[in-house]
Amino acid sequence: MSTIESKLAARGLTLPPPPQPLGSYTAVSRAGDLLFISGQLPLRDGKVAWTGQVGRDLSVAEGKQAAALAALNVLAQIRAYLGSFDRLDHIVRVEGHVTSAPGVFDQPAVLDGASDLFAEVLGDKAGHARAAYSQTQQPGNAAVILVVIAQIKD
Amino acid sequence: MSTIESKLAARGLTLPPPPQPLGSYTAVSRAGDLLFISGQLPLRDGKVAWTGQVGRDLSVAEGKQAAALAALNVLAQIRAYLGSFDRLDHIVRVEGHVTSAPGVFDQPAVLDGASDLFAEVLGDKAGHARAAYSQTQQPGNAAVILVVIAQIKD
Amino acid sequence: MSTIESKLAARGLTLPPPPQPLGSYTAVSRAGDLLFISGQLPLRDGKVAWTGQVGRDLSVAEGKQAAALAALNVLAQIRAYLGSFDRLDHIVRVEGHVTSAPGVFDQPAVLDGASDLFAEVLGDKAGHARAAYSQTQQPGNAAVILVVIAQIKD
Repeated sequence: MSTIESKLAARGLTLPPPPQPLGSYTAVSRAGDLLFISGQLPLRDGKVAWTGQVGRDLSVAEGKQAAALAALNVLAQIRAYLGSFDRLDHIVRVEGHVTSAPGVFDQPAVLDGASDLFAEVLGDKAGHARAAYSQTQQPGNAAVILVVIAQIKD
Repeated sequence: MSTIESKLAARGLTLPPPPQPLGSYTAVSRAGDLLFISGQLPLRDGKVAWTGQVGRDLSVAEGKQAAALAALNVLAQIRAYLGSFDRLDHIVRVEGHVTSAPGVFDQPAVLDGASDLFAEVLGDKAGHARAAYSQTQQPGNAAVILVVIAQIKD
Repeated sequence: MSTIESKLAARGLTLPPPPQPLGSYTAVSRAGDLLFISGQLPLRDGKVAWTGQVGRDLSVAEGKQAAALAALNVLAQIRAYLGSFDRLDHIVRVEGHVTSAPGVFDQPAVLDGASDLFAEVLGDKAGHARAAYSQTQQPGNAAVILVVIAQIKD
């Protein structure tokens, strides 16, 4: 078990099976040293565990849990693609889409649920640029979707 | 005529002239082996052929046609930039933005109109990561916009 | 003072200090020759200078000013990361998110405020692909957010 998986276990987390694509595309596409990971939802046991709008159906604290769960699925995709985390150089960018009620402007706080998880378990491989978006609704009625680019090394 | 264009012809499709930018930017920007293609609308003969919201103004089936038409414009941009498809390695990522009525959550089904077209005509160059978004409205009132990254080879 | 900063000065502009991240991420993340810059808001003196929706709270002309201000913050991030603009190869892609009232479809015109600024001060380093989005609301109630990828050289 890698250090990363030990850190996940210490938080009571295990990597789920990587979610299958929802259509005719692939979960991860590589270009050179970059991995482009398809949008990841807050899936647990194959179901969207967090749905609806932050500020109406979920609190910011619950939104952070949704973001952390989506981040766990991102990690599952990376490990499934690479076989382990050894060749992960770092998370390059996280685009975080938060389904939000009108007047909710603190999407960055919600997305810290994902960024904090990356920081805790990936250490110096976690440092990413980020962009935060407010969405009125998202595929599968997901509360949060993460679109991530990672860099790998030989 | 390349295999790719033959496959398009077999579907009754021909590549349109690549759409010109709508402002002070370029249609395609290269960085190393990556091509970043500006957002492509479902344009036909210079006009947005599919407008409005899926679930209100368009059915999912019509949205798929809109996505396929935007994908055809993506292919037109790639061929215009490279001169042919010979140097296309693969489609790396498709970000698909679907203008959607409230309560519509099946943007992935709409975007399969684009992914399926890529798969049919590009074969093993088609495998891409994907992210699906629901938008309330988009530039030009377009029903679908695709933002694509492709990898090229020497 | 570089040519770029001279050109900014000729427009009465100076680069602000680069904004700090709004959460647990980094302002700029590098992967190979690519710089991924976190979403930049139209910040001035640490505050969002342009808020609300274009077409309701702002005119298109004001939206262009918001886009130009966000672009200035993008330039500030690049210079802070690289130390100067000498190693900037070009702006690869600009994703421009415009907070918009219902029925506003001319987000590209707003984003020309950013693209024009890049063209004027960066010259042949400015040529970028672009994608334009309409958002109902954004973090910090910002009127415009720019998400930029740049390429650097040795």
